[in-house]
Amino acid sequence: MRSVSIIGVGTTNFGILEGMSIKEMAALACNRAILDAGIDRKEIQALYLGNYIGGILVGQETLAPVIACELGLKKSVACTKVEGACCSAGIALRQGYMLIASGVYDFVLAGGVEKMSSASTEKNTEALAAGMDKDTEGYTGLTFPGFFALVANRHMYEYGTTIEQIAMVSVKNRKNALKNPRARFRKETSLEEVLNSRLITDPLKLFDCCPISDGAAAAVLCPTEIARNFTDKPIEIIGSGHGLGHSTSYSMEGPSCAATVFAAREAFDMAGVTPSDVDVAEIHDCFTIAEIVDSEDIGFFERGKGGRAVEEGLTQVDGKIPINTSGGLLSKGHPVGATGLGQVYEIVRQLRGEHENQVKDPEIGLAMNLGATGLVSTVTIMRRI
Amino acid sequence: MRSVSIIGVGTTNFGILEGMSIKEMAALACNRAILDAGIDRKEIQALYLGNYIGGILVGQETLAPVIACELGLKKSVACTKVEGACCSAGIALRQGYMLIASGVYDFVLAGGVEKMSSASTEKNTEALAAGMDKDTEGYTGLTFPGFFALVANRHMYEYGTTIEQIAMVSVKNRKNALKNPRARFRKETSLEEVLNSRLITDPLKLFDCCPISDGAAAAVLCPTEIARNFTDKPIEIIGSGHGLGHSTSYSMEGPSCAATVFAAREAFDMAGVTPSDVDVAEIHDCFTIAEIVDSEDIGFFERGKGGRAVEEGLTQVDGKIPINTSGGLLSKGHPVGATGLGQVYEIVRQLRGEHENQVKDPEIGLAMNLGATGLVSTVTIMRRI
Repeated sequence: MRSVSIIGVGTTNFGILEGMSIKEMAALACNRAILDAGIDRKEIQALYLGNYIGGILVGQETLAPVIACELGLKKSVACTKVEGACCSAGIALRQGYMLIASGVYDFVLAGGVEKMSSASTEKNTEALAAGMDKDTEGYTGLTFPGFFALVANRHMYEYGTTIEQIAMVSVKNRKNALKNPRARFRKETSLEEVLNSRLITDPLKLFDCCPISDGAAAAVLCPTEIARNFTDKPIEIIGSGHGLGHSTSYSMEGPSCAATVFAAREAFDMAGVTPSDVDVAEIHDCFTIAEIVDSEDIGFFERGKGGRAVEEGLTQVDGKIPINTSGGLLSKGHPVGATGLGQVYEIVRQLRGEHENQVKDPEIGLAMNLGATGLVSTVTIMRRI
Repeated sequence: MRSVSIIGVGTTNFGILEGMSIKEMAALACNRAILDAGIDRKEIQALYLGNYIGGILVGQETLAPVIACELGLKKSVACTKVEGACCSAGIALRQGYMLIASGVYDFVLAGGVEKMSSASTEKNTEALAAGMDKDTEGYTGLTFPGFFALVANRHMYEYGTTIEQIAMVSVKNRKNALKNPRARFRKETSLEEVLNSRLITDPLKLFDCCPISDGAAAAVLCPTEIARNFTDKPIEIIGSGHGLGHSTSYSMEGPSCAATVFAAREAFDMAGVTPSDVDVAEIHDCFTIAEIVDSEDIGFFERGKGGRAVEEGLTQVDGKIPINTSGGLLSKGHPVGATGLGQVYEIVRQLRGEHENQVKDPEIGLAMNLGATGLVSTVTIMRRI
């Protein structure tokens, strides 16, 4: 297997991108990644595009080849949309990584996109629930705010995690987003404001939930051995994991996602590093409680200690393991199919030393997604070289 | 690169599968493929699942991991839904092929599924049109019957192809489906009946169009070097192509699909064989005219000679190049996301010498899909070993 590096990244802002179609958003992010990489687009041999609910929300499928035509890629380019709920873009990146590592391709464009703001909140809630197993919990009407409320209640019951600790995730991520020009919410909040915001699904309030957003992100990958022909700051992918969890919440063993545990183990084993070696991470905070559970499943903190870690400031920009310096899904936004590569964009900027919330001299970064009811997870570990 | 073989295939019948969910259909086909391969499901390392419009029609996404849970696959299995309109299952197979060939995995399950019959014809037409570029021709209301009518008219204008020759594709494929227990339409038709059936989009009549159907199909792949541990009749994949075409009909250069031309060239170059070496083929006859255009784009016949070839009987079961001995999409049915692996199922049966319309001693078979407005194509060449 060859070493693989990211030589270019691009993104749109995340938010309400009125007047831009799903195709145009994806093409914009891809063009920015191609420009950042400084490669001729004729070099690109494959496009993997993450998207979750573009069919339901905007009626656009066959999305990867439609975007490839918009980008003017050559006719031999193999174009594939990949879907794995909120992991869609993480999966897209992983396909490119595997196929370059194994020598099938030399240059792959990985992208992700979601257009949500043109549909109503009700339509979005219904569309997002397509991630539930329709034959079981989907049929009962369980939605994601409901699922993560179950997880939060169980975490509080099992480990004594407090509602304040959970809310502090939102306060931290809002603060981080202040400096991020790509973020949707750039306004500080307080513990009081989070706790007093409208109840959504007990114990989660409005400010515990990420906003429905539009956005796209992309990365260009190539073998590390030629990466310096294109950039002075290649970012090597040293670990990639993709795990399977449970399709129903009643199968879960406590407030933990088996998919993440597996994906993280796979990625760390491949990278030959441990969670304590990670200097900066973007992890899946679709709800405040998710960031806490993720941080335990990845191994940043012991089981049950994630809430206290937030309270102690360990996940702040200047903490032991800075988490979601971008503002996270909670503040930057969560255009579902784009999120995984949006995280990679932020980590690449951190490892290049170019981030607005720059962590001090980071060498190793991690991006992690969680899809559906903890059903699927992707973890990518990157290193500055 | 290692040689890769198909060691097991499975399918549901194609048709109206009332009372079965999309998950159940996919699991049934996958379980049959696993049984046919005779492997322990614990061996499976990745699942690639083709699906086109399960989000729009039945509201089920995150489909690959949902099905993996139903199948009881282990938690380290990487599960990915892939989408490329009618090529979705062809793309799923190709991912498995590439990742085994390059040494990433040893055992991959590739599946495809579509559940269409629970939605109305209008809803299906709208959903299928998600393959159009929404910013251009999709916006104008162009549908697939409209697109293929344009292609038919142009083929008739350019090459003198007759409406009778086009209709003969339907007569042939209906006849082939008579013996196929998996086919939806098992009733012969006549040239007169096709020509006198209801006009859909001039010059195409009802019997020129494939039926909306439910169905699923799957295949298990492994390195050829260990394939005989599982089966006496492994089928080697010797060529795989995946091409990009045009996202609008007005960009096309005549009645030909650039994506197919590229995909076929890629697959034949890899296989080191030519179109005349192929003994049996399943190609994408979503409409009668499509089979004729495909047969020229692949290189079975010279440009413009595809219609005459049908008239001369060259594509019959006992002809020079037997095409769609299964009955094709026109008679077997076209559950979009399953079709590519449905074709592979038929070719594997042919190459094993087990088909209901057995071609005499075939050595090399080909399966080919076309997606959207000729926007994407996959070609797989297989050999009996």
